[in-house]
Amino acid sequence: MATSGEHTVKAFDEDIGALRGLIAEMGGRAENAIQDSMRALMRRDLREAARIVAEDERIDILETEVERAAVRLIALRAPMADDLREVVAALKIAGVVERIGDYAKNIAKRVSVIDDNGDIEPLSLLPSMARIAVEMVRDALDAFAARDAELAYEVCQRDKQVDDFYNSIFRTLVTYMMENPKSITPATHLLFIAKNLERVGDHATNVAEMVYYAATGTYMAERERGDDFLDQDED
Amino acid sequence: MATSGEHTVKAFDEDIGALRGLIAEMGGRAENAIQDSMRALMRRDLREAARIVAEDERIDILETEVERAAVRLIALRAPMADDLREVVAALKIAGVVERIGDYAKNIAKRVSVIDDNGDIEPLSLLPSMARIAVEMVRDALDAFAARDAELAYEVCQRDKQVDDFYNSIFRTLVTYMMENPKSITPATHLLFIAKNLERVGDHATNVAEMVYYAATGTYMAERERGDDFLDQDED
Repeated sequence: MATSGEHTVKAFDEDIGALRGLIAEMGGRAENAIQDSMRALMRRDLREAARIVAEDERIDILETEVERAAVRLIALRAPMADDLREVVAALKIAGVVERIGDYAKNIAKRVSVIDDNGDIEPLSLLPSMARIAVEMVRDALDAFAARDAELAYEVCQRDKQVDDFYNSIFRTLVTYMMENPKSITPATHLLFIAKNLERVGDHATNVAEMVYYAATGTYMAERERGDDFLDQDED
Repeated sequence: MATSGEHTVKAFDEDIGALRGLIAEMGGRAENAIQDSMRALMRRDLREAARIVAEDERIDILETEVERAAVRLIALRAPMADDLREVVAALKIAGVVERIGDYAKNIAKRVSVIDDNGDIEPLSLLPSMARIAVEMVRDALDAFAARDAELAYEVCQRDKQVDDFYNSIFRTLVTYMMENPKSITPATHLLFIAKNLERVGDHATNVAEMVYYAATGTYMAERERGDDFLDQDED
């Protein structure tokens, strides 16, 4: 700790603890929203989908609370070095978790379109893809809570699994569309859902990178993130 | 300014000015990258596409510089109130601009796929869509540089134009795929390119919202952002 005096240290720890708590709540809600959106999609449950869309606002509000708390913390405690880096990481992580919530909302919004168009075989691959992505998010946030650079590093290694899922779903859907022109509209929505899940994996990776930086003060090397320069669908 | 003393104020102004400069450079590069990616796409210019992909790293490095400069600024100047809010906004805006650069890179990466598959009529709509999105980014960053809440508000109003473009391209491409099954693979990539441009508009809107907040201390009301709850493709 760069802050001086027992009292100040304790106060900072309490504040950063509150910040971690808000982010943990955001993360839990975002993870559930992704998994719930998959269940709503598989069951064509429009009421559940509407609930997911409505509840995303709660995640947005939590991000605003994180931002206000971080600004208040910086203004009151004037954290230095590691502490300041951790507050900045918390700010950025809250922003990423908010976007993960948006992906869940986006998936939920597409349930009605799929619903109107019957079954599409590649649908069955999505929940497994979602499970891996959600576990990455959970572990990335656990790594943040525990300042665990090793876990953060390990999360980044898993992103390739999600990308592989995405690429295989992409190819399957394209073939499917060629064979069933009537399926093109719902299939394009499934393509976007798969893309959203692939992005969730990317965002979990981003969080893990921030955790790694906050914990070590150094950036994870590009190649260590397992980036694939040739991945057509990375963004 | 909440900081006290002529010297401190001047020092803060210089630091935040440097931060603004880095973000302006990031923004200029991201805007050019989007426009260049459109030209590369229309001309099927693979060399230009490769250059855009390679140069995105520069934007990533600039974001890292912004983060370091912001942390240094907070540690050294201990900005309060408006100043602190502005530094936090700068941090978040740099993150958004970095993502806009990623969209340009992603579009550039798809040029080769389109190239392999000849002409697709909806292609011609993309550059106009890109122009509006890039102007939104430029104006959002100008609003940040000038602390112009009014311009920021105005940028948000323009997002609907980009969304309308996206929805029309989406429908056109789906019809196109149904009529030309062979075009499905390139058409899905065009769909993602259109989606990327739609996201650029969303990100410009996010920046404008942050600028509005940094300038006024209040959040733009949800409905004022012209959000469309029913927009299937918002994320």
